[in-house]
Amino acid sequence: MIDPFDDDYYMKKALDEAHEAFDKGEVPVGAVIVMNNQIIARGHNLTEQLNDVTAHAEMQAFTAAANFLGGKYLQDCTLYVTLEPCQMCAGASYWTQIGKIVYGASDHQRGFSALNTLLHPKTTVISGIREEECSKLLKDFFLSRRDLN
Amino acid sequence: MIDPFDDDYYMKKALDEAHEAFDKGEVPVGAVIVMNNQIIARGHNLTEQLNDVTAHAEMQAFTAAANFLGGKYLQDCTLYVTLEPCQMCAGASYWTQIGKIVYGASDHQRGFSALNTLLHPKTTVISGIREEECSKLLKDFFLSRRDLN
Repeated sequence: MIDPFDDDYYMKKALDEAHEAFDKGEVPVGAVIVMNNQIIARGHNLTEQLNDVTAHAEMQAFTAAANFLGGKYLQDCTLYVTLEPCQMCAGASYWTQIGKIVYGASDHQRGFSALNTLLHPKTTVISGIREEECSKLLKDFFLSRRDLN
Repeated sequence: MIDPFDDDYYMKKALDEAHEAFDKGEVPVGAVIVMNNQIIARGHNLTEQLNDVTAHAEMQAFTAAANFLGGKYLQDCTLYVTLEPCQMCAGASYWTQIGKIVYGASDHQRGFSALNTLLHPKTTVISGIREEECSKLLKDFFLSRRDLN
């Protein structure tokens, strides 16, 4: 049986968020949080618009998901994010006790894997979903910025 | 010459914030951000009240400081915080490029030192300012909670 609501499906939704960031001139990273096949939170990077380095897509999605649930733990949720979370976002995920993290493109310089950020022991991780598409959007963004300068 | 505005002075201000958290039933951690001897941001832990694990004292102070300055980088600022920052907050500090972090009590389990979180290369760190007082407030809090159960 084909599952229409698989990791690929939700990563596409995270990519929709990343495209919204792109259109606002933000580094294009998007995230959604899913529980029982339902998207309960969305977020995209807004660090420039908000003048706030903490406004990463994941951080906003964690806050929104906790707000939706009325509780701050996300054990039964999955975070889909187009770029591998950084130390800050992975550190936040530790506190949320999130059940699963699925990311698209890897970040070999600032990602939590390279920097050995501790995840919650109950958090599982899947990577590489729509990796090329997530990565291409970031490359396109930085190329477009270079052309501006 | 005695400097009235030394690390001890500003840690006392961070402790005032921690006491506010205590009074609200929050794990008592407080922070201030200082630039040119002026407190430009304050924050205390509000994770319970806001149902949000990202509402650590430091995170709120970073956001408030950037808002005050109208820019998201804090190179000329010092963060005073009563407890050693966790991975999330240290990860956020990386993105702010903050000049200095001064903390009171160490956190040997969840603090950034034990977990090897990467700080920005330009960030210097001082620890142990009013350590006993910062630590006692946390111990008093957890003792008071134990008595409630």
